[in-house]
Amino acid sequence: MSKGVTVWFTGLPCSGKTTVADRVAETLKKKGYKVERLDGDTVRKGLTSDLGFSKKDRDENIKRVTFVAKLLTRNDVIVLATFVSPYKERRRLSREEIGSFIEVYTRCSLEECMKRDVKGMYKKALAGEIKDFTGVDDPYEEPENPELILDTDKESVEESARKVIDKMMSLRYL
Amino acid sequence: MSKGVTVWFTGLPCSGKTTVADRVAETLKKKGYKVERLDGDTVRKGLTSDLGFSKKDRDENIKRVTFVAKLLTRNDVIVLATFVSPYKERRRLSREEIGSFIEVYTRCSLEECMKRDVKGMYKKALAGEIKDFTGVDDPYEEPENPELILDTDKESVEESARKVIDKMMSLRYL
Repeated sequence: MSKGVTVWFTGLPCSGKTTVADRVAETLKKKGYKVERLDGDTVRKGLTSDLGFSKKDRDENIKRVTFVAKLLTRNDVIVLATFVSPYKERRRLSREEIGSFIEVYTRCSLEECMKRDVKGMYKKALAGEIKDFTGVDDPYEEPENPELILDTDKESVEESARKVIDKMMSLRYL
Repeated sequence: MSKGVTVWFTGLPCSGKTTVADRVAETLKKKGYKVERLDGDTVRKGLTSDLGFSKKDRDENIKRVTFVAKLLTRNDVIVLATFVSPYKERRRLSREEIGSFIEVYTRCSLEECMKRDVKGMYKKALAGEIKDFTGVDDPYEEPENPELILDTDKESVEESARKVIDKMMSLRYL
């Protein structure tokens, strides 16, 4: 039986949010915890199919996800949310609304993210085929006081995941 | 510790969905169950502020609520959802997606609902000030095989709430 908490991964596209969160989810599920992963793909169909990438739409996206995370968190579920969530003020509002909130910043240089470019999105953004792409023509506002920073261009997925779990333990959510 | 389930109350505006569900929620919370109430008011701010009352918007509303109910239900929460949800096909989709689903039809004559008119909405709809109002100028499609029918114009709130809890017990959710 766990206490509910939302672990909120924020960072540039391709900075490693999903990879690390998936690893954490796997570990916690094996230990019997209730875990939900929330990311763009899982919420798009049911929750945000009408939204694009403008600032307004991004904020609305995060607003809806925050509502879901809040309800799960207060019912003792561990929520691992991975969203670029580039705007500081919107992240602050999510923290305020959810309450039990761990902000994890996957810090990775833009160069490295562009090199990874898992889905070819940076390429499209640089070619002007996608607009408002974070890191290219939309800003990413770095967290000032996240609970945890993961330097994903230096550490392994295993190390990053371990750090997240250690942080959850030290904050007594596990 | 309960098994998760969504109890989905459907029926005309003012047919008693909220009153009965609130009573059920109160009883179950006292017994220590994890309960979430979802209704138009609770989801509007966080989830559906962009939606109106057209068929398209109503369906989108229910789609988003269904996503939330699904996540809560599979994490062992008892969800009491109260929405007019007038369209049969959309309710069927919710049932399919959520899985553990009890459909409760608060059956009440239109005349009685209009007489109650808790928020003065029927009056406004009849005066043409609100469009697409269920029962006035938008249809309500009655459930064909709901798990439970509550005749809220004949039975007391206490009786109706008791029936819901009995049904949950007989289906082994409590």
